[in-house]
Amino acid sequence: MESFKVNILGCGSAKPTLRHYPTSQVVDFRGNLFMIDCGEGTQMQLMRMRLKPNRLRHIFISHLHGDHCYGLPGLLSTLGLTGINGHVTVHLPEEGIRLLKPLIDYSTHDLQVEFQPYEYGNNIIYEDKSLIVNTVPLKHRLPCVGFVFREKEKLRHINREMVDFHQVPVAMLPRIKAGEDYVKPDGTIVPNKILTNQADPSRTYAYISDTLPLKAVINEVKGADLLYHEATFLSDMLKRAKETCHTTAKDAAHIASEAGVKQLVIGHFSSRYINEMPLLEEAQSVFPSTVLAREGLILDV
Amino acid sequence: MESFKVNILGCGSAKPTLRHYPTSQVVDFRGNLFMIDCGEGTQMQLMRMRLKPNRLRHIFISHLHGDHCYGLPGLLSTLGLTGINGHVTVHLPEEGIRLLKPLIDYSTHDLQVEFQPYEYGNNIIYEDKSLIVNTVPLKHRLPCVGFVFREKEKLRHINREMVDFHQVPVAMLPRIKAGEDYVKPDGTIVPNKILTNQADPSRTYAYISDTLPLKAVINEVKGADLLYHEATFLSDMLKRAKETCHTTAKDAAHIASEAGVKQLVIGHFSSRYINEMPLLEEAQSVFPSTVLAREGLILDV
Repeated sequence: MESFKVNILGCGSAKPTLRHYPTSQVVDFRGNLFMIDCGEGTQMQLMRMRLKPNRLRHIFISHLHGDHCYGLPGLLSTLGLTGINGHVTVHLPEEGIRLLKPLIDYSTHDLQVEFQPYEYGNNIIYEDKSLIVNTVPLKHRLPCVGFVFREKEKLRHINREMVDFHQVPVAMLPRIKAGEDYVKPDGTIVPNKILTNQADPSRTYAYISDTLPLKAVINEVKGADLLYHEATFLSDMLKRAKETCHTTAKDAAHIASEAGVKQLVIGHFSSRYINEMPLLEEAQSVFPSTVLAREGLILDV
Repeated sequence: MESFKVNILGCGSAKPTLRHYPTSQVVDFRGNLFMIDCGEGTQMQLMRMRLKPNRLRHIFISHLHGDHCYGLPGLLSTLGLTGINGHVTVHLPEEGIRLLKPLIDYSTHDLQVEFQPYEYGNNIIYEDKSLIVNTVPLKHRLPCVGFVFREKEKLRHINREMVDFHQVPVAMLPRIKAGEDYVKPDGTIVPNKILTNQADPSRTYAYISDTLPLKAVINEVKGADLLYHEATFLSDMLKRAKETCHTTAKDAAHIASEAGVKQLVIGHFSSRYINEMPLLEEAQSVFPSTVLAREGLILDV
């Protein structure tokens, strides 16, 4: 199947540590790179993970806390310096334009940066022939959204033997792949399902950024192949999680379980956890198919 | 002697590498920390070098290229988060207030940040009872200055034996240290130089940021104990150095030599140099007392 991977560049939270970089991920969808969040140091992590900057055309910022966006000026300025000579679109809350654009405009040359503000809510913010990205409204201390990357329905596979047997002309094949039946010169109809095999399944990646655990998210991420959910605290810190509008590992796992996702990856760990195994164990006790995010991790969707 | 040290947090240049962080230094003057420049990732380097954030009260930004200032929002926001509950003054070009203040104000709480713009030129921008900091105008692609940290003249040391012998009252000692003679009850004058020994020498650290090599700098850094001078290129790249308003290792060494400084440290290395020894050798061929900057290096002034 064509590539659909998530690269973890950073999975720490607001207070920096020497164990983690702040939040950033890169979704590799069929060789095109889509960045989600861009904390300080992201450009170094991009280099370290050998992700090709010239394949990066879209950056999605979930909210404007520094640990999710302070790496943006440096990254864009470097993309300009390295002469990728292209065009990058930054999708972000409107307020981000006021905060970040002056600094970015001042230092970023030879790179066209377009700021595409999105509304807080449930909206399609990116679409091409094979991928669709929509926002999921979350509940944090300031406007914050998650992002769902959905592969569009794919074309069916041609059954080479049957196509030859029924002497379907080559020129017809794209229409057969698209689902049409074949009408022979004598008028006989060969149904599409005889000429084709089932399409590959369409895959979904859901990124749920800083938030209180939300029932509404369950519907939005239903059946996802991979769900990233923040899990800043263990459940013995539930009070603190509520105060700071964050989720515990247990609550993240409950959401994964109720949404019936295939795999859960948790991240955005509070700096207080030197050892993160208890976070993993807590989540796995509810949803066994959980992994811990870590810098350098690459997950297949 | 009381501490006066320079900590190198980063010494790379604009294009990031995995070998260096962008420019930042911390001057430790008698336990008070003064930061010079603050490239992306500086807050992590501060942590790595175990420099105490609550001792940091002044940050000096030489110019507004990203590799000298993009770490500022993250550093200040973290200082706020870690609850040092204090007051930090950022000395920077006026333009920097427009570019950085909105972003910093948005995310930095529980920390009072004062922006103190300085004029391009030769000005005193900080002074206390023992230290004075002035700017040195440089010539780069945008307004840029260096900083000279000068220890003020120190008090002479009391010669305990002579003070006892002449029965100088304890209450008089601060005035003796300050240079006064002692007048005995019988009117006899004991000259200060009999009662005291020479003060420790006053030390100077000069930081010369991104610039073409300038004759005018020689006077400004004359006799400094330690000179940091950028040396982005080897002299076979002189043309490129001129185009980008930078200095070669050889030219940096000539300035150190003509200024008669005690030691030179070179930095701001172009990302093209995987091996930096040729930069060191080129500088040492002109000025032997040269060292290479590197992350984690601590130099005594």
